[in-house]
Amino acid sequence: MKYKATAVSPANIAFIKFWGKKNPKINLPFNNSISMNLSKCLTFTSVEFSPRFRSDRVYVDGKRLEGDEIFRVLSIIDIVREKSNISWCVKVVSKNNFPSSAGIASSASAFSALALAACSAAKLKLSQKEISILARLGSGSASRSVIDGFAEWVKGKNNSNSYAVQIATQGHWDLRDIVAVVEKERKKKSSTEGHAVALTSPFFKIRQKIIYQRIRNLKKALLTKNFKKFGELLEEEAIELHIIAMTSKPPIFYWNKGTIAVIDKVMELREKGVLAYFTIDAGPNVHVICKANDTKRVKQNLVRIPNVLFTIVNNACEGTRLIKKHLF
Amino acid sequence: MKYKATAVSPANIAFIKFWGKKNPKINLPFNNSISMNLSKCLTFTSVEFSPRFRSDRVYVDGKRLEGDEIFRVLSIIDIVREKSNISWCVKVVSKNNFPSSAGIASSASAFSALALAACSAAKLKLSQKEISILARLGSGSASRSVIDGFAEWVKGKNNSNSYAVQIATQGHWDLRDIVAVVEKERKKKSSTEGHAVALTSPFFKIRQKIIYQRIRNLKKALLTKNFKKFGELLEEEAIELHIIAMTSKPPIFYWNKGTIAVIDKVMELREKGVLAYFTIDAGPNVHVICKANDTKRVKQNLVRIPNVLFTIVNNACEGTRLIKKHLF
Repeated sequence: MKYKATAVSPANIAFIKFWGKKNPKINLPFNNSISMNLSKCLTFTSVEFSPRFRSDRVYVDGKRLEGDEIFRVLSIIDIVREKSNISWCVKVVSKNNFPSSAGIASSASAFSALALAACSAAKLKLSQKEISILARLGSGSASRSVIDGFAEWVKGKNNSNSYAVQIATQGHWDLRDIVAVVEKERKKKSSTEGHAVALTSPFFKIRQKIIYQRIRNLKKALLTKNFKKFGELLEEEAIELHIIAMTSKPPIFYWNKGTIAVIDKVMELREKGVLAYFTIDAGPNVHVICKANDTKRVKQNLVRIPNVLFTIVNNACEGTRLIKKHLF
Repeated sequence: MKYKATAVSPANIAFIKFWGKKNPKINLPFNNSISMNLSKCLTFTSVEFSPRFRSDRVYVDGKRLEGDEIFRVLSIIDIVREKSNISWCVKVVSKNNFPSSAGIASSASAFSALALAACSAAKLKLSQKEISILARLGSGSASRSVIDGFAEWVKGKNNSNSYAVQIATQGHWDLRDIVAVVEKERKKKSSTEGHAVALTSPFFKIRQKIIYQRIRNLKKALLTKNFKKFGELLEEEAIELHIIAMTSKPPIFYWNKGTIAVIDKVMELREKGVLAYFTIDAGPNVHVICKANDTKRVKQNLVRIPNVLFTIVNNACEGTRLIKKHLF
């Protein structure tokens, strides 16, 4: 019997952001977060445990990870080995279907795919909740990718009650996330770096005071499909992450000039009556959210911006799932 | 005897910003602000009262002001007429020596020049403090342009004790303000618009809590010429104005892609050991502050940025003063 399994998992775009860790060791957040899975940003991961393997090996997009890079992956593998009483070495092969130059955080799709594939390979029967928790330990936002469609990561108070649940299925609302990938001028600053200093912003406490009302309002707008209200809250929240970053000590600027060019275009489109709204994760790329029937027009406008290298059009989709075709 | 006088006055760059009006009618601010006069951004204003004039006329850069535009100017003229018991009509001619396309707020230089020229034309003998107060009624930041060199506008509690005082003469510190004028893609949003909504930002109150420590620290860095400390506080303060604007309801974005390109360049220069820091008023242009002997290198780097149209190199200079050469 082979101890091998393969999972596929989407990245997700957070409408309400995870920013600041209450417990960095196990990725407990300060606030709930809400996201939509991204249909065109997928990670495929195959995991095999075998007595034939002499060492743990992890390959991502053809490159073998070493040193610190492999540490986060093996910390998840070790939990699975412990739970399943497997002591064999592991081989992990992982592949993204979106270019790494897209600057889309692949840790959410990567750690959710890893969590499910590793458990399945080890014949561990975990619930979706337990997979979400395991994924969270690798990368906080990975907890949300496990869920189909639209998810809320409930912050919880300890390891066993901090996980994501479904708010709505992928069929609930035909939204599009057009990722506008912009010039990569800036040296990559990780979200980890931003999380670490978030609490040094003099404005972080206020964010924590006002975010619960915003979460309630955004969830309501999502469930009632009030796109204008939804979009306004989306932008308010996106800006807030970045003002916290810019006022952290030391300050972190994730935006580049392409970021601003896209924001300008989105505002211009709205003035022309096309309802599109932006959100931005811890990087320069802009996620432009619109309704399905505006996709073509919005995309056409975005690709014409000189600083936009290319776009990726996503809709909501299934969460992490097993597939039969292995990568090795 | 002619009732005619001409004044020249510099714009100024605020190191600590005036943002949010406690009393919008008479421009009382929430906090003290600190600035340096800009030697290359001057407004020249001639004022004449005469029984020959049949109506009040105001010309700015060759264009006659009408309707609402003339209102702010005449409100200052009316105060002067009342104080001096003059009932004649007025002719005001004003000219900036910097292109209006520079997007540099000319209201500070304009209203300070107007205040002094109008008083002098009316044979009113006002103290510097009284000129600063009169200028403030036209435009808050104009109160600072009246003072030589580096000024602090003390917020005060009512009309008679809200005015600027000198912190240091123009000879105190050989700083340069290189204004990087960037693409004007965005529709002009006035600072008035920003002031009006500043209090709707959930972060405005925190700003008011932390700004007094920053003012003390910046003043100390200015007086002891600690450029690194000064620059760090300068950027912290600049970002804070913009995060208040971006989180106001409705949000206001003053930055364009050129703004970010210049910020990036300034940070890059610092990594290379060139000490330069940025500050940004309510608009897209970036004021890059450096020490005199770094001017050439900083300027060369700024003009090479594709989004920078041109630069204006300023040093600290005298405040508002009378000159003999009239504009008409």
